[in-house]
Amino acid sequence: MLSYVVNRSMSRRPRPETPRLRPRVAPTDLTRIDFTEFTPEPVPFLGQAAYLQLEVFENLAKAVATAPDLSAKEGLSAAAGVALRKHHELIAELRRLEVEPADVMAPFAPALDRFRQATSGADWYELLLGIHITSGMLDDYFIRLAEGLPHDLRQRVRAILGESRSAQVIEDALVQAIAADHTLDDRLALWGRSLVGDTLLIARSAIRAGSGDQPADVEPVFTELIASHTRRMDVLGLTA
Amino acid sequence: MLSYVVNRSMSRRPRPETPRLRPRVAPTDLTRIDFTEFTPEPVPFLGQAAYLQLEVFENLAKAVATAPDLSAKEGLSAAAGVALRKHHELIAELRRLEVEPADVMAPFAPALDRFRQATSGADWYELLLGIHITSGMLDDYFIRLAEGLPHDLRQRVRAILGESRSAQVIEDALVQAIAADHTLDDRLALWGRSLVGDTLLIARSAIRAGSGDQPADVEPVFTELIASHTRRMDVLGLTA
Repeated sequence: MLSYVVNRSMSRRPRPETPRLRPRVAPTDLTRIDFTEFTPEPVPFLGQAAYLQLEVFENLAKAVATAPDLSAKEGLSAAAGVALRKHHELIAELRRLEVEPADVMAPFAPALDRFRQATSGADWYELLLGIHITSGMLDDYFIRLAEGLPHDLRQRVRAILGESRSAQVIEDALVQAIAADHTLDDRLALWGRSLVGDTLLIARSAIRAGSGDQPADVEPVFTELIASHTRRMDVLGLTA
Repeated sequence: MLSYVVNRSMSRRPRPETPRLRPRVAPTDLTRIDFTEFTPEPVPFLGQAAYLQLEVFENLAKAVATAPDLSAKEGLSAAAGVALRKHHELIAELRRLEVEPADVMAPFAPALDRFRQATSGADWYELLLGIHITSGMLDDYFIRLAEGLPHDLRQRVRAILGESRSAQVIEDALVQAIAADHTLDDRLALWGRSLVGDTLLIARSAIRAGSGDQPADVEPVFTELIASHTRRMDVLGLTA
């Protein structure tokens, strides 16, 4: 279902006029799933979410360091600050539960480190799209999972993860870059597609880590995540 | 006067008992200089200070990414957040003066990028010490230079640059590392010494950039910076 083909040395070809690829998922097909039934364990949930924000921060810091100009640096460094704040706020929630954040995050580190490396791309543009797609999908996903948390914690987690200013900064940078360089869109479209599989695997591991009972059917949620992904790619003018 | 010898492959040797190197600068020798006579131009002063904080942030982000454990990551990521906040607050001061921060910072970027690369070291420990020594000296220096700024701006700049929580985090990490690995102290002592020259060159360029008139004699200020450097190294148990 998902394409993993990435051909980085691909030369510019005219886009095929037809057949035009349709988005794989039509939003009207979606069945809503009541996420409260998953009732994630707060501690591992927060640990994975916190470590994930640290990874997003590290990738954004790399994007700052390699940005082509100072204006891009400024926007991205603000976005890096947002990811860092999310990380520290989630860590504060762990401390509130009287656990040591480093201990809780440690089991998630190897897989998430690999995930970050696998999604950070071959250059600045792929790095940016990698951050945008993966953190977009996973923030959405963790907000959905949070529906099963105790009420107060749920409210705070949604407030922490819901901050989307940084997504706007990255989107603007990508839109600008794609408009300026017409060799980018095909390459980034492929790259964007290749990110989905890895991201869904991380999402799936979040359910396993966060919940004692294996959820019967998370497929509809995943379908919804892919639909959001398609919309995110559409905004960039990229075929999902 | 300054030693530039760095021998990274140096094997562990017993420390010579005598002659023990004395700190090069005795604090009592210092003549205070009235920095208000330098009256730095606010715009280039803020531009260089802002870009410098961005460099500190980038090095701290690298230190986060390469930290040996999650506890170190947590402290350093908080420190990275502080540098980022300093950067953005200085940029906000530039906007208040109705200039475009990217334009103001651009002339300082090449030299400061080189400076960051030259002071980021061969491994995580050298990177940390590089951040600690260079940002310690330069924050002190910019706070001194700020004495010549208009009153309100001076107060705000001193408040921005005076935040020293992150220095404490880095110092703690270094003290721990040096205690845990007895091969580190000689190597880091040499590395610390080699950082001083480059840092003073950046400090000197700050005066040129920030002030129309070439100051008659900044040597006493530099002497004072070196004395602070010696104290900073002493705290780490390193011979300056």
